[in-house]
Amino acid sequence: MKRRRMIYEGKAKILYEGPEPGTVVQYFKDDTTALDSTKKAVIEGKGVLNNRISEYLMTQLNLIGVPTHFVRRLNMREQLVKEVEIIPLEVVVRNVAAGSMSKRLGIEEGTPLPRSIIEYYYKSDAMKDPWVSEEHITAFGWASPQDLDDVVNLTIRINDFLSGLFLGVGIKLVDFKVEFGRLWENDYMRIVLADEISPDSCRLWDVQTGEKLDKDRFRRDMGGLMEAYSEVARRLGILPESGQSEAKGPMLVR
Amino acid sequence: MKRRRMIYEGKAKILYEGPEPGTVVQYFKDDTTALDSTKKAVIEGKGVLNNRISEYLMTQLNLIGVPTHFVRRLNMREQLVKEVEIIPLEVVVRNVAAGSMSKRLGIEEGTPLPRSIIEYYYKSDAMKDPWVSEEHITAFGWASPQDLDDVVNLTIRINDFLSGLFLGVGIKLVDFKVEFGRLWENDYMRIVLADEISPDSCRLWDVQTGEKLDKDRFRRDMGGLMEAYSEVARRLGILPESGQSEAKGPMLVR
Ligand SMILES: Nc1ncnc2c1ncn2[C@@H]1O[C@H](COP(=O)(O)OP(=O)(O)O)[C@@H](O)[C@H]1O
Ligand SMILES: Nc1ncnc2c1ncn2[C@@H]1O[C@H](COP(=O)(O)OP(=O)(O)O)[C@@H](O)[C@H]1O
Ligand SMILES: [Mg+2]
Ligand SMILES: [Mg+2]
Repeated sequence: MKRRRMIYEGKAKILYEGPEPGTVVQYFKDDTTALDSTKKAVIEGKGVLNNRISEYLMTQLNLIGVPTHFVRRLNMREQLVKEVEIIPLEVVVRNVAAGSMSKRLGIEEGTPLPRSIIEYYYKSDAMKDPWVSEEHITAFGWASPQDLDDVVNLTIRINDFLSGLFLGVGIKLVDFKVEFGRLWENDYMRIVLADEISPDSCRLWDVQTGEKLDKDRFRRDMGGLMEAYSEVARRLGILPESGQSEAKGPMLVR
Repeated sequence: MKRRRMIYEGKAKILYEGPEPGTVVQYFKDDTTALDSTKKAVIEGKGVLNNRISEYLMTQLNLIGVPTHFVRRLNMREQLVKEVEIIPLEVVVRNVAAGSMSKRLGIEEGTPLPRSIIEYYYKSDAMKDPWVSEEHITAFGWASPQDLDDVVNLTIRINDFLSGLFLGVGIKLVDFKVEFGRLWENDYMRIVLADEISPDSCRLWDVQTGEKLDKDRFRRDMGGLMEAYSEVARRLGILPESGQSEAKGPMLVR
């Protein structure tokens, strides 16, 4: 087998050169980091679940017309994506106060926000992903005002769709982080959703019990991370052994 | 008991004067009509389900910041809403070809559309709700260009959220109809979602089987309307006897 060239190794994924120009293979590791990488662990099987969950969410977003980098899943841990020029921003949407927002603004975790709030963090491990505003972003040229416009519009659509999708399976989408990239097709450029959407990058709370079904279980030493991620996949109907269809009641008889 | 004044009797609902100025009580009848009212029936219990489903969907839309006329459900068949000046348009969103679009454009039912399409129909029983364009709407003053802008933006958000919500419970949102109204608060006017959202006004197909869970069962003499509407309510987790929480797997053990 031809050895593939590694392009980049990140905290949770490795990028390899894809089979065709302009494509990249995203390999999902089991590595789990938090608190600016001061906290680390390997949680067996996490990468497999995130690969599958991100595939599902990107596919569904594609279907409602949100362009993404996703092409197809290749195997348990890998997916083929279109190579993009990553906009160096972590775009965060918050529907309910939690995490750093609660800490920074003194709002109790779980307080619903008056409206969804978008925040930007500059992707820089060295600077520990600092919070930035549109002013910084356009001034330093990380994204143009037009790029940001697209980013905001796509982010709002993603939030609306995912909020509905998760609510449908009894999960509150508290907040999440997405990344976008520039996809060049001939002379034409569009902004597409890139990276991943998974319980690593979302806060997901059970609607009934408030149970955390996301990476906060790791950040806060609560344990049960794999059970939580599996539960998310199971509710989304993408675990073969107990899919969505079986979670439903009897079919209608005509 | 003081007799309330009836304001309007429509095909599926009756409007009564509400307890405070600026409010209206929407009473959901069991009357079911189709094909411009040439087909009629009374389907026992339908009004109760639509009242409950519309309450749920409007409440969730409110929570993501889509303004609606909904105040609260009063009882099995009635809900309190804010009185609005109805924009005389049925705003239809289509994600998949079906019904009149399939017939008019010769696109087979079930064909996914390249992107979601918004259509407008002028609310006029006499004219049988004719199809109109933005040109007609602004020319005849049914809505101003600014009103229409708000209508389009809200409609896109509603479609994204409901598509996600229904997908989460194994249902494809094929198309739906909404109505909007002008809500006056002092000198300030905003456009809000009004009327109802229910299986009377949506096409809902089971994702797995394609089973119709909407009023097409009545239009096409398929029977099983109440079972279908109940199934929608059950999957949304709003039938007390078999709520969403019970459709889920075991809770996580910490
Ligand atoms: N389609 C893509 N093309 C190029 N780079 C991508 C694409 N999707 C995601 N990336 C980048 O690949 C990396 C994914 O690995 P990850 O472990 O998340 O890295 P990091 O530690 O930098 O967050 C990220 O830096 C992300 O910005
Ligand atoms: N908040 C509201 N304020 C005033 N009118 C409303 C409101 N919500 C809905 N309506 C109107 O009330 C009527 C509801 O009854 P319905 O049986 O659907 O009537 P129709 O036969 O005209 O469709 C509709 O005409 C609708 O436009
Ligand atoms: Mg990353
Ligand atoms: Mg009506």
